[in-house]
Amino acid sequence: MRHFLTLRDFTKKEILEIIDLALEIKKDLKAGIYKKELENKTLAMIFEKSSTRTRVSFETGMFQLGGHALFLSNRDIHLGRGEPVKDTARVISSICDMVMIRTFEHSMIEEFADYSKVPVINGLTDSYHPVQLLADYMTMVEYGINEDAVVAYIGDGNNMTHSWLMLAAKIGFELRIATPKGYEVDSKVLEDALKMAKESGAVIKVMNDPKEAIQDATIVTTDTWASMGQEDEKEERVKAFKGFMVDGLMMCLTKKDAKFLHCLPAYRGQEVSEEIMDQHAEIIFNEAENRLHAQKGLMVWLAQHAR
Amino acid sequence: MRHFLTLRDFTKKEILEIIDLALEIKKDLKAGIYKKELENKTLAMIFEKSSTRTRVSFETGMFQLGGHALFLSNRDIHLGRGEPVKDTARVISSICDMVMIRTFEHSMIEEFADYSKVPVINGLTDSYHPVQLLADYMTMVEYGINEDAVVAYIGDGNNMTHSWLMLAAKIGFELRIATPKGYEVDSKVLEDALKMAKESGAVIKVMNDPKEAIQDATIVTTDTWASMGQEDEKEERVKAFKGFMVDGLMMCLTKKDAKFLHCLPAYRGQEVSEEIMDQHAEIIFNEAENRLHAQKGLMVWLAQHAR
Amino acid sequence: MRHFLTLRDFTKKEILEIIDLALEIKKDLKAGIYKKELENKTLAMIFEKSSTRTRVSFETGMFQLGGHALFLSNRDIHLGRGEPVKDTARVISSICDMVMIRTFEHSMIEEFADYSKVPVINGLTDSYHPVQLLADYMTMVEYGINEDAVVAYIGDGNNMTHSWLMLAAKIGFELRIATPKGYEVDSKVLEDALKMAKESGAVIKVMNDPKEAIQDATIVTTDTWASMGQEDEKEERVKAFKGFMVDGLMMCLTKKDAKFLHCLPAYRGQEVSEEIMDQHAEIIFNEAENRLHAQKGLMVWLAQHAR
Repeated sequence: MRHFLTLRDFTKKEILEIIDLALEIKKDLKAGIYKKELENKTLAMIFEKSSTRTRVSFETGMFQLGGHALFLSNRDIHLGRGEPVKDTARVISSICDMVMIRTFEHSMIEEFADYSKVPVINGLTDSYHPVQLLADYMTMVEYGINEDAVVAYIGDGNNMTHSWLMLAAKIGFELRIATPKGYEVDSKVLEDALKMAKESGAVIKVMNDPKEAIQDATIVTTDTWASMGQEDEKEERVKAFKGFMVDGLMMCLTKKDAKFLHCLPAYRGQEVSEEIMDQHAEIIFNEAENRLHAQKGLMVWLAQHAR
Repeated sequence: MRHFLTLRDFTKKEILEIIDLALEIKKDLKAGIYKKELENKTLAMIFEKSSTRTRVSFETGMFQLGGHALFLSNRDIHLGRGEPVKDTARVISSICDMVMIRTFEHSMIEEFADYSKVPVINGLTDSYHPVQLLADYMTMVEYGINEDAVVAYIGDGNNMTHSWLMLAAKIGFELRIATPKGYEVDSKVLEDALKMAKESGAVIKVMNDPKEAIQDATIVTTDTWASMGQEDEKEERVKAFKGFMVDGLMMCLTKKDAKFLHCLPAYRGQEVSEEIMDQHAEIIFNEAENRLHAQKGLMVWLAQHAR
Repeated sequence: MRHFLTLRDFTKKEILEIIDLALEIKKDLKAGIYKKELENKTLAMIFEKSSTRTRVSFETGMFQLGGHALFLSNRDIHLGRGEPVKDTARVISSICDMVMIRTFEHSMIEEFADYSKVPVINGLTDSYHPVQLLADYMTMVEYGINEDAVVAYIGDGNNMTHSWLMLAAKIGFELRIATPKGYEVDSKVLEDALKMAKESGAVIKVMNDPKEAIQDATIVTTDTWASMGQEDEKEERVKAFKGFMVDGLMMCLTKKDAKFLHCLPAYRGQEVSEEIMDQHAEIIFNEAENRLHAQKGLMVWLAQHAR
């Protein structure tokens, strides 16, 4: 049995298998074909942090595959409060067939997985957001910019950035991360990524100059400067991130026809300009839709490997 | 593709098509027949205001049609906060097949519909409550009091009243609205209804005297004096609505065998007496049940017109 | 039509029928067989008190049987506030096929059942928790300790204890309840159980000495000392329950191979020691899983008797 906690534990071949499943599932859906690969199966979705996008895509995906997703919000369940995580994990995994967890501390989801009898999916932690990266890479594959991509990530060194590091390191493309000073990625995660990059041939660079990062990039991406729970640092962060907005001027430095990705929600006038959001709306909302397909691919893959 | 935001945008013929579908679906259900007309389809239900009745009827209806409804409460989603409505609309409508929204400002649902790729249903706004009126008219049809009805609405000039105006103006029956002074219907909505009434032959009258309105009526209806969000005006409203309770004395003025409808929740001793609620319980709870059938008819109709 | 409010209203034969259905459903599930006995049916789950275990087991169970469960939390519905219980009962039961209620006052669920057109299930009240006892007895049957069992309940005289009283009285096994002084079971419930015990041959004893109760017992069980809503009495209760922890020393007094049951959540170091939880983990988590199977058996039974 396999869990999906970070991309770290997956080989390039496995990641590509999931993407292939996702692409096939998307093609089927557009043709009105719904294969019931998870018939009778249930997914417990534990949301300690709320999220419309993750919720809607997992719940719809599970239903389209013939299964059912249970929405357990932070009003209904508190991992580690009331009862130990190990008890909750054993109970839920004795009733449901898969578990998706969106929580704060990554160690919480690791502990849950240790005691779970069924596959556990990371739906976002403070450290990683691997399902988003599956959707992102699926989108890159659809647009034909994948293994040769030069990806520039401009912004906060957060869970999204860590997951980009894992993806690049596994797939082998070039990733340049520009963060303001003081907002760098976790050094341990970077170190791990650099080690893995040696195997895959990925080129990974971190810096503090967005213009240097974006030079001739084929994919540009960013994330909100203040994630959920960081709202009180917002003002301070807006100051620190001055010069890090992806706007028309910045996008001039990329390779011709470079694409812009955003995991949403987007704060226009902060990490990205209104203009860039409008110009790249098609790929951005396709990327959002791909959450559905990528996660369906992932769940089908995990069910195949749970047998 | 069609949205269902108010009855204004629907012809009489279309409204009757939806009612016919609803009656057929109800007949099937009573015979244990569940036609899976929305198999594999998902409905995102966005509830910025909570509601048991709307929730239970939409979620059950969607399931009985072979689909799945996602319950997104005001704890999980805030339209227009966090991200622009246009982004939320584009994301949700790229994953789900239909959207039901219960919110405050009617303009919010209009903006959502503008950006949605799938049909949007108004599950209540401060201005209109058209799904309730489908259930009400379906009930009138079942009891044989429809195009010739003389409907007396006694009470607050609110979203229910506005929807009654639209229904009467489209179908062509007589509608008399009696509200206390200061609680009249929106003058723009009234004007629109009067214009449409010219075409359909509807007779629409507004007044401040409930006894005048109810004289020889064949259908009497009302609504709570203080809707959700108006709780702090309650005392003031109770004073203003003195003499507007539908009770036995008031019902003596109607035509013989007149029916009483209530969209619930009912506040006995305020807009209606305990006695009248008890006497008309059968039709009132049938009306409530018809929410299920009417909304199923509506969703099937919208799906047919989304193709 | 039958409701499931307490075990009091069920004969031994009926309880065993439900357990048999549950055992068969469990066997089928382990063999990958999902009989759609509740196809197209909906269960409204009303949770005035939150609960992961009850929620997950009912929602999964209903889905596996081909039906759908609606989760109505205390944010979405308040029985008896806003509208009378009788109205809510009539509306919900005209749309859904079964109702599960978890609430505080037992009289609330009785009133709901009085007006409901469909079967109502007690998912926990301040007075009883009969679905937990179905799972517990199913577990006892699986381990071959059932009609001849000597059950020792060590702890608070609460809704769990009351349900044990009903179960023992109906089935006919021996039940010894040891509570601290001041925390005894309800005298009216005890009296009823003693009356019923005469018929079934059950031996029921209440006492204040846990060591006396546990002597040669074949099943030992307990419950949290401070249930939901009693958190502020916690300190006082911890004092009062001194000497009531089920630990290794206490378990030495039982018959050889005695089993320990816990309905969870368990507070290690209070009503049970870490050691005992670990030693009996297999049966305890099987008991938790049996909530799923027992409740499926119950719903199938009720549907058969609703026709």
